[in-house]
Amino acid sequence: MLRANAIVGQSGGPTAAINATLSGVIRACLDSTDRIGALYGARYGIEGLLNEELIDLFEQFSDKAQLRLLERTPSSVLGSCRIRLPDACEDDSIYKRIFNIFERYRVRYFFYIGGNDSMDTVSKLNKYSMMNSCNVITIGIPKTVDNDLMLTDHTPGYGSAAKYVATSVLEILRDCAVYTAKAVTVIEIMGRDAGWLALAAGLPGYINGHGVDLVYLPERAFSKIEFISSVSSALETHPNVVIAVSEGIRYADGTYVGDSDNRTDAFGHRYLGGAARALVDIVDRRIGCKTRAIELNLLQRCAAHLQSATDISESIRIGKAAVKAAIKGEGGRMLAFERSSGRYFSKIKTVNADDVANRVKNVPDEFINKDGNGITRACAEYLLPLISGEIKNEYKNGLPVYCTIKQRGQYV
Amino acid sequence: MLRANAIVGQSGGPTAAINATLSGVIRACLDSTDRIGALYGARYGIEGLLNEELIDLFEQFSDKAQLRLLERTPSSVLGSCRIRLPDACEDDSIYKRIFNIFERYRVRYFFYIGGNDSMDTVSKLNKYSMMNSCNVITIGIPKTVDNDLMLTDHTPGYGSAAKYVATSVLEILRDCAVYTAKAVTVIEIMGRDAGWLALAAGLPGYINGHGVDLVYLPERAFSKIEFISSVSSALETHPNVVIAVSEGIRYADGTYVGDSDNRTDAFGHRYLGGAARALVDIVDRRIGCKTRAIELNLLQRCAAHLQSATDISESIRIGKAAVKAAIKGEGGRMLAFERSSGRYFSKIKTVNADDVANRVKNVPDEFINKDGNGITRACAEYLLPLISGEIKNEYKNGLPVYCTIKQRGQYV
Repeated sequence: MLRANAIVGQSGGPTAAINATLSGVIRACLDSTDRIGALYGARYGIEGLLNEELIDLFEQFSDKAQLRLLERTPSSVLGSCRIRLPDACEDDSIYKRIFNIFERYRVRYFFYIGGNDSMDTVSKLNKYSMMNSCNVITIGIPKTVDNDLMLTDHTPGYGSAAKYVATSVLEILRDCAVYTAKAVTVIEIMGRDAGWLALAAGLPGYINGHGVDLVYLPERAFSKIEFISSVSSALETHPNVVIAVSEGIRYADGTYVGDSDNRTDAFGHRYLGGAARALVDIVDRRIGCKTRAIELNLLQRCAAHLQSATDISESIRIGKAAVKAAIKGEGGRMLAFERSSGRYFSKIKTVNADDVANRVKNVPDEFINKDGNGITRACAEYLLPLISGEIKNEYKNGLPVYCTIKQRGQYV
Repeated sequence: MLRANAIVGQSGGPTAAINATLSGVIRACLDSTDRIGALYGARYGIEGLLNEELIDLFEQFSDKAQLRLLERTPSSVLGSCRIRLPDACEDDSIYKRIFNIFERYRVRYFFYIGGNDSMDTVSKLNKYSMMNSCNVITIGIPKTVDNDLMLTDHTPGYGSAAKYVATSVLEILRDCAVYTAKAVTVIEIMGRDAGWLALAAGLPGYINGHGVDLVYLPERAFSKIEFISSVSSALETHPNVVIAVSEGIRYADGTYVGDSDNRTDAFGHRYLGGAARALVDIVDRRIGCKTRAIELNLLQRCAAHLQSATDISESIRIGKAAVKAAIKGEGGRMLAFERSSGRYFSKIKTVNADDVANRVKNVPDEFINKDGNGITRACAEYLLPLISGEIKNEYKNGLPVYCTIKQRGQYV
């Protein structure tokens, strides 16, 4: 078979591990130069691809030290986008443009690293290619701190985010323990549709015996009455009550607890925020003690100074595996992890990207305690291998050193 | 001279380095057993002292490995309080109780680790001792992430907090850089009266060339007109504008920009919060692009997973120096750092605690740019040594291991 070129893009929200996956793709392509002539990075995902904002990644990462630095670097070094492709049968103009670019750049492999929205793109591009005999193999590589993709045991990026959440909660618990006056602290954690990341807040308690008092997830309807009762009970046993909450918790009628406004993002997802403040407001009005709302915010997805070594090594492996799958011709597939039974080990397989697209995997019942406000032992055992291991970052001037790529004077 | 006993207490807000200072005190006392028979830790500062909640620290930390762990551990392991002593001439009952406890425990040295409120306590206890010939030497040891104490080049705890702020800002900048749509992100940093900690947000730009666009401090009156104009200008040059702001910024008339309510703490300090949200609100209404407000919140003072090695070694040194000063009889003094000229080195001296009590040191003019919205080279040169060096934490189960002391079943 003739040598052809490849393009890789990053999509959706940044993580602390998505560049490690990119590095895996670059490494495997560099090892497959008999099949792959050039690897281009599309800036800003599909958006940059359409503008032909392409970077020669073989040239950019000819130095292996730069690849190692890339693996330590948070956020999406190529940039990202939140573009949803229309159905080709309704409007195929954008597909024509994309495949025209693929043709001009002699592209046979397209790797798209992203979440369930990106898998929709993977599936659509693959179908278009098949129906129009374009012979371009599109492969999806999972990434999301939300860990809510179907058909994979977990997602790259989740382990590092969970490690950051658990460590931050551990440290906040310490901070909250210093005074004797009654106080309620509510920590808000990302998770619009599923509570995976908030589960990590339960780990310090599981490990040290002293942890958060309550964990609220979108998987259980939030009850104000249960909340007030549980907080009051906790305050009777100790003065410093700490609560973790997913941003997406909802009342039984489906309305968001933190729905302070009605903004939506480009995908029509509701913009959330304020679940912690909403709970603090309930405590202020119904219990009346010192309160504090903490949003972990962007840092939970981009704090590469606290990467999980397991997450990073798996993210590199899955990037490499994607290149192998592409060469084998597995268009329209997404790479996925399968957990071995017994001692933790993740095997890599491929699944149908279409079965992942636009769907959400919720936290299973066996990970949530019977009161719906805490985690179980099974949950901790699922989480612990994913946050395990530390990465030794390179520091200069007291700050972590991260990879930069420059293109036309632009900072990435 | 006969052997006598000592008590140490921690006060005010927690830091990532206050336990390192405690460790220094313990180490030096263990080295001075010819003079010091026992060292007690007062739980919850003066509050626990009054309740005789005392821990035998020689017994608790007989194992040096525990002392090393203590130095890595965030927050105040003994607990803290926010008690202000009355003037003894108005009401000396509390003093009588305290000195009665000192007498019963044969205490000659009292070490109080805290900020400017705690130095008020140090000064008052020393005066009472002198006037009543109690022969108890009270020594103040500085601690605050706010770095706003008079007569010391910097304060223990500040370096680690500044390292956390600078690293977090560096990572948030990465996260914000991935999309091409115009967006303004405002990061709120602790600093009620002085902008020292927000200065650290300027470091990534100084080091990497790519940093926050604007830094607003309480030392300069905030102007809405200047703000809108500066943000608009920044948006013309690049899509992702990132702004750092001290929680305590004020308009020219003295009102707080983030004054969303009128709550005050036990010292009558206004409880602030919401400066970032106030600025985001201005952008929403006057400029109109995607916005996000981020509060770094408690983690900036308790994130021991990102301690500055310089800060920790200095914090231990100043704790040790306090014991020497006490044995020399320097009652009513606070330990302080003096910076050497040339290559960075900190000398330790003592100053009058009364000159530090209740006063605030502001950021000097030469650290703030002429537009009042950024830092200078002199500022970066002041900051860099303080955040330098990393600590290798001990991890278990993927999380940092921190020191615990147990007393009557209570978790510290």
